[in-house]
Amino acid sequence: MYSNIKVIAFDADDTLWVNEPYFREVEQQFAILLSSFETENKINQELLKKEIENLPIYGYGVKSFVLSMIETAVELSNHKIGSKEIQKITEFGRQMLNKPIELLEGVEEVLRTLSPNYKLILATKGDLLDQERKLEKSGLYQYFDHIEVLSEKTAKNYDRLINFLDIHPSEFLMIGNSLKSDVLPVVSVGAQSIHIPFHTTWVLEEVDDAHDKESYKTANSLLALLKIL
Amino acid sequence: MYSNIKVIAFDADDTLWVNEPYFREVEQQFAILLSSFETENKINQELLKKEIENLPIYGYGVKSFVLSMIETAVELSNHKIGSKEIQKITEFGRQMLNKPIELLEGVEEVLRTLSPNYKLILATKGDLLDQERKLEKSGLYQYFDHIEVLSEKTAKNYDRLINFLDIHPSEFLMIGNSLKSDVLPVVSVGAQSIHIPFHTTWVLEEVDDAHDKESYKTANSLLALLKIL
Repeated sequence: MYSNIKVIAFDADDTLWVNEPYFREVEQQFAILLSSFETENKINQELLKKEIENLPIYGYGVKSFVLSMIETAVELSNHKIGSKEIQKITEFGRQMLNKPIELLEGVEEVLRTLSPNYKLILATKGDLLDQERKLEKSGLYQYFDHIEVLSEKTAKNYDRLINFLDIHPSEFLMIGNSLKSDVLPVVSVGAQSIHIPFHTTWVLEEVDDAHDKESYKTANSLLALLKIL
Repeated sequence: MYSNIKVIAFDADDTLWVNEPYFREVEQQFAILLSSFETENKINQELLKKEIENLPIYGYGVKSFVLSMIETAVELSNHKIGSKEIQKITEFGRQMLNKPIELLEGVEEVLRTLSPNYKLILATKGDLLDQERKLEKSGLYQYFDHIEVLSEKTAKNYDRLINFLDIHPSEFLMIGNSLKSDVLPVVSVGAQSIHIPFHTTWVLEEVDDAHDKESYKTANSLLALLKIL
């Protein structure tokens, strides 16, 4: 395993830097904003429903999240929500997009160590602009040959990416925190993956436990990667 | 010119299919929605201002446009806008994202003719998901090796793309309707471009007339490309 790798693709959010906890924070603020209409539990449920419903049309990322919050607020309040609250919601989004970058431990060391020996790319489902901004702010841009945005991290899309890179699937290694997006579809096309769990996982990224655990390795942190590779 | 091309990149909106006129239509509907607060002229001006202000944080595409409309409506109405109108605005966005695709003349013939001889990619500033959806719906997906989303079509980003493609700049040809985005930055990095004007141009894509017109050719339609190449 991991012997003839040419391209290493890193997931971005919650693999290189903190992301999911910011969504959880804003969900809490959103529930407070709507607390005169519903319980926090109901608000969270309705927001998640709306996000799932919107995924095929809006995709991933902060802007989609903001639009789903606005639509949820309008519907859940029976059109009683005021425009001050709507403005608050767009401000939640701006805050998320302007957050300073909180790199996970060892990111720079790992990228600096690997970049002379591999072609490194960033493979993400988020907004391109948002991810570029994070790379720029964090000073990590220099280590990456390419940023690849995938609308969904499916086997088909990984296959397309690997074809485009003009390499054999076994020469492609994906590293990320999501079993559903970064590991299982990757090993299913004959490419390689290393899973680095993160403490917070979005419910839509969860998978059940019944899958082949022999097909990938798990590292406890980015730094632990260096021992595997 | 155009003799040793290996990769042809096509812009998507208003090069392969109609796009900009849909934005103009929605701007008109937006002005009608806010007509009790302001004149159409003032509404258009404020929306454009908001879009320009938001570009560095939201980027291009329909979701950004919807968020800019919502923010403009809230501010321009001094918070008097109701949540029914906010809902209307999110519906404008959904309508845009669900529009049937209106291909420009000759698209399929041109792609079918060129695809055996060149690597074809789509190079766009819009939302990835939205552009993939248009490609799928139109049946054109099969002709493209790759979709490249650029946060901005700058010389620097074209340079990165050409490097990543592992070709010489002179082997890269960009085809599109925007002098500002598809032509001038491309020829500035030593790559090649063909301009295909479209009847409607967003004001932010306009350039003044003082640029070197020897560095690229203009085709009146996609079909005319086949005579140049």
